[in-house]
Amino acid sequence: MTDNDNTVDDVAARAAAAGRAFARTSPRERGAALVAVADALDAAGAELIAVAMRETGLGEARLAGELRRTTWQLRLFADTIVDGSYLDARIDLPDPDYVIGPRPDVRRMLEPVGPVLNFAASNFPFAFSVAGGDSAAALAAGCPVVVKAHSGHPELSRRTAGIVAGALRDAGMPDGVFQLVSGQENGTALLRDERIRAGAFTGSTHVGRMLADIAASRPTPIPFYGELGSVNPVYATYADAALLDGFVASVSGSAGQLCTKPGFLFVPEESDLSPVADAAGAVPEHRLLNPGIGRAFVQRREDVLEADDVTVLSRGEVRVDDAGQTYATPTVVAVDVDTLIAHREALLEESFGPLSVIVRYADRAALPELHASLFPGNLTSTVQARPEELADGSLSALVDALAETSGRVLFGGWPTGVAVTPAMQHGGPYPATTTDATSVGTAGITRFLRGVAYQNAPQELLPAPLRDDNPWEVPQRRSEPGGSTSWGSFAR
Amino acid sequence: MTDNDNTVDDVAARAAAAGRAFARTSPRERGAALVAVADALDAAGAELIAVAMRETGLGEARLAGELRRTTWQLRLFADTIVDGSYLDARIDLPDPDYVIGPRPDVRRMLEPVGPVLNFAASNFPFAFSVAGGDSAAALAAGCPVVVKAHSGHPELSRRTAGIVAGALRDAGMPDGVFQLVSGQENGTALLRDERIRAGAFTGSTHVGRMLADIAASRPTPIPFYGELGSVNPVYATYADAALLDGFVASVSGSAGQLCTKPGFLFVPEESDLSPVADAAGAVPEHRLLNPGIGRAFVQRREDVLEADDVTVLSRGEVRVDDAGQTYATPTVVAVDVDTLIAHREALLEESFGPLSVIVRYADRAALPELHASLFPGNLTSTVQARPEELADGSLSALVDALAETSGRVLFGGWPTGVAVTPAMQHGGPYPATTTDATSVGTAGITRFLRGVAYQNAPQELLPAPLRDDNPWEVPQRRSEPGGSTSWGSFAR
Repeated sequence: MTDNDNTVDDVAARAAAAGRAFARTSPRERGAALVAVADALDAAGAELIAVAMRETGLGEARLAGELRRTTWQLRLFADTIVDGSYLDARIDLPDPDYVIGPRPDVRRMLEPVGPVLNFAASNFPFAFSVAGGDSAAALAAGCPVVVKAHSGHPELSRRTAGIVAGALRDAGMPDGVFQLVSGQENGTALLRDERIRAGAFTGSTHVGRMLADIAASRPTPIPFYGELGSVNPVYATYADAALLDGFVASVSGSAGQLCTKPGFLFVPEESDLSPVADAAGAVPEHRLLNPGIGRAFVQRREDVLEADDVTVLSRGEVRVDDAGQTYATPTVVAVDVDTLIAHREALLEESFGPLSVIVRYADRAALPELHASLFPGNLTSTVQARPEELADGSLSALVDALAETSGRVLFGGWPTGVAVTPAMQHGGPYPATTTDATSVGTAGITRFLRGVAYQNAPQELLPAPLRDDNPWEVPQRRSEPGGSTSWGSFAR
Repeated sequence: MTDNDNTVDDVAARAAAAGRAFARTSPRERGAALVAVADALDAAGAELIAVAMRETGLGEARLAGELRRTTWQLRLFADTIVDGSYLDARIDLPDPDYVIGPRPDVRRMLEPVGPVLNFAASNFPFAFSVAGGDSAAALAAGCPVVVKAHSGHPELSRRTAGIVAGALRDAGMPDGVFQLVSGQENGTALLRDERIRAGAFTGSTHVGRMLADIAASRPTPIPFYGELGSVNPVYATYADAALLDGFVASVSGSAGQLCTKPGFLFVPEESDLSPVADAAGAVPEHRLLNPGIGRAFVQRREDVLEADDVTVLSRGEVRVDDAGQTYATPTVVAVDVDTLIAHREALLEESFGPLSVIVRYADRAALPELHASLFPGNLTSTVQARPEELADGSLSALVDALAETSGRVLFGGWPTGVAVTPAMQHGGPYPATTTDATSVGTAGITRFLRGVAYQNAPQELLPAPLRDDNPWEVPQRRSEPGGSTSWGSFAR
C-alpha cells in the first residue's frame, strides 16, 4: 500500500477490484471500520504529532486539535452512514391509475461512484490529508480511496496511510480499499485512469484548476471536487480594539495558512486602526509550511507592501533559515476602496500566509455592490455588526450579496474555525471550489454517490435499503399509489 | 422574450437581474406559478399539438401523451417545492461542549445556483424542450431559465415560450425569469457568459460533449448537465414470440428516436428469432424527426447491414420525400457475441432511429463481464427473465454489473417508458450523462441548487426555511447540543 514499486496501473487495478465488495458492506460494518481507523490514529497520536511538527512547522496544540478533529470526523461519518438518510432511499409503489399512465414499481437510492483519487493538502496534515475529510467521506460512501500524498509531509503521510489501511484490513474491509501514492506524475496519471471515478483536492487555484481540466478532458470525464482559493472578506460596521485583536488573531493563526483566513477586512473610514500594530507586534514568528510556500509568501508580501497608496499598519518580519524555511510575523496594510479597485490585480489575489488588507469604506450602502464586483466566489464571508444593526434589517442587501457568492456567511466571529457538523458548508462559487459541493461536514458524502433506480425488481435482487423489510432500518420515502400529490390544494 | 433583436448580452443581463427576486419567492408562490404554466399549456394543447405534428412528424396520440406528461411534470415539481424536503434544511444548535471545541449555531440549506441555460432536444418537443423537465426543475429551484430552442421545432418553441413566460408573468414572477433564444452561436455565446451559472442539455454525444467542454473551460467553470447517448442493453434468458413482439414495439415506438430505445437485445443462441420479421413487418412507416436525423439514420443503417457476419432479420425500408424528410420501418439484425466484439466499432454506436441488434449468446455466466467491457455507461439496462430465475439468485452478478454502469435497471418491461416520479433516475455513467445526475423525476432539482451555511445568524436575517418559526413548514433536521451521535453504540 505504501510500496512505491506499485505502478499506477497496479494501484488503479486494486482500487477497481475492491469496488464491488466494498460497496456491498453494510453501513454498520463500514461505520465500525471508520471508528477503528479513528481509534488507531488516536492511539498513535503522540508519535504522529511529533512527525507532523517536524515536517510542517505547525505547533503541538494546533496539531493535537487537528488530529482530534480528524478522528471525530471519521466517527461522525460512521454515524452518518448508520443513520442511512444519506442514501435518499425513495420507493414509488406501482400505481395503475397514475395520471400519465400506469406507474411501475420504481426504487432509487444513492450508491458509491467507485474509486476516488484524493489529492492531499499541505496545510492540514491530518484534517485535509491522508485520513482527512475527503478520504473519510469517500470511504463512508463505500468508495475505494487512493490518496496522492502531499510532498510537504511524506513521512507523516506514509505512517498515517499504514495505520488507516491496517485498521480497515483488521476491520474486515476488502483488500485495496485504501492506497497511497506519491509524486505529481503518479497523481496525474491516476487522474487520467479510466478506473478512477472521481477526484478530490485541497490546494492552490493554479494546481486545482490544472487537475480539474484533466478530469474534464478525459475520454470519460469525471467529477473533480477541488477546494482552491478564497480571500474570505469581512465587513465590519465598527472597528474597536477588541475586533481588531480578533482580526489579527484570525489572520495569524497557523501563520495565516488556512483556506478561511480573512484576507480583507472592511471598516468605516474613520476607524482608529492603531491597535493593529500592537496586536500584530505581539505575535511570535511562525514557520511557514515549506520552502515553496515561504518563497511565494515573501513575493506576495513585497507586491502588497510596494503597491501605491498602501498604508502599512504592521510591516511584519520574514526570515529564511539555513534549511530554506521561512519564518514570518503578521503583515497588515490599509487601503481605501478606490485604491483597492485601482490596484485590484495586485491586491485581490489570495495571500497564503500571515498577511491581510484592511479596506476603509465611506459608504456602507455601497458595500453589497462592491462585494459582488470584487468577490464572485468565496468559502466564507462575514458580517461584524452590533446587535441593533443586525436586527433592524439594514444589512439584508449585504447578506444577500454574501450568500450569493459564498458557501458560509458568518455573523460575528471569524471564519478560520470550521465546525465539522451536519450543517457545515465548506465550498462556494468558483474559485472557492470547482463545484459548489462542501468538503467539510457530513453533507460532503453526496459527492461520492450517484443515483440508481430499480424498476419492478424482485425483493431478492434489490439492495437492502430499498427492500420492503428494510434490514438496515434506513429512512425510506414512499410514494403510495393513488397519488399523494397535493398541488391542487395550494394553487391559485 | 421571443424577440430576436435581443442580444445575448441583453438576455444574460435580464436573467441575472431576475435572480435575486426569483430566489426570494416562496415555494408556494413558485409552485402556483408552475401550476399556472401547466394549466396554460393544457389550455393551448390542441393548437400546440397541431404545430408539433407538422414540425416533428410525431403522431397525435404520442404528442398528446407527451404534453400531458409535461404539464404533470410541472405540477409534480410544484408539489416537490411546497413539500420543502428538497431544501435539505439542517440546523446545528450551538454546543459549548462539542467534542472538538465549542460549536456555533450553523444552519444550512440549498439555494438556487442562478441563471440556467437549457439546450432543448428535438425528439421530445414538449417533455425535453422549452417547457420540459430541465426548465421545470430549474424554475422550481428558483433559477431564471434561458432556453436555447431546438431548430427542429421553431414555431412550437416560440409558442410554448410565449405561453410559459406569460403565465409566469401573470403569476407575479419577476421579469426575465424565462427567455428563449435560437441559433447555435447564441447558445454557445450564452454558455460562455459569466452570468449563466449552469447548463442543461439533451441530445447527441457529439454536441453534448462539445458544450460540456465549453462549460468546463470557462474562466469560471460551471456544471453542465448533459444527457447524451445510450444504447440500453437488454439481457433475456429466453426469447419467445411475446418477448420479441415487445422488443420490436419498444424499438419502433416514436420511430426509435428515444434515448432509452433498446439498441441491443441479448438472447440465448438457440432462440427462434423468426417472430421478429413478422412483428417488424407489421409496423407502418414513420417519419424521422428532421432531414438531418434521417440522413444519419440512413448511413448508420447501411453500416450495420453491411457489417460482416450480420444476419438480417428485418431489413426495413427507408424512403425520402421531396421535402427531404425520411420515412422508415424497423431494421433488426442478429449477430453472435464474437461478431459483436470483432465489429464493435461498427456495431456498438447508438443508432437513433428504428434499428436494433439482437445478440445470440452461448454462455449466460459470461454476460456480466461482457456487459462491463462493452457498455460502461447507459441510461438503462434491462433483465428479462422468468420469475424462478429472478428468485434463485443466479442473476445477481449480472444485476451488479448493470447497476454499476446504468442509471436505471429494469426487471421485465422495456426501457422506453420513463415514469416521472420521485424515485426515477434518468442519468448514468458517461456517456449516458455528463454527470450522474437525473434529468427526469423530482430528484433532478438538486442539479440547480447549492449549499449555503449561515453561522450565528440572527433570526431576522435567516432565510425562512432555517428560521426557528419555520414559516414554510419545511422539514428541518436539527442537531441538538449535547451530541446526538450514536457511533459508540454500534462500533465493535
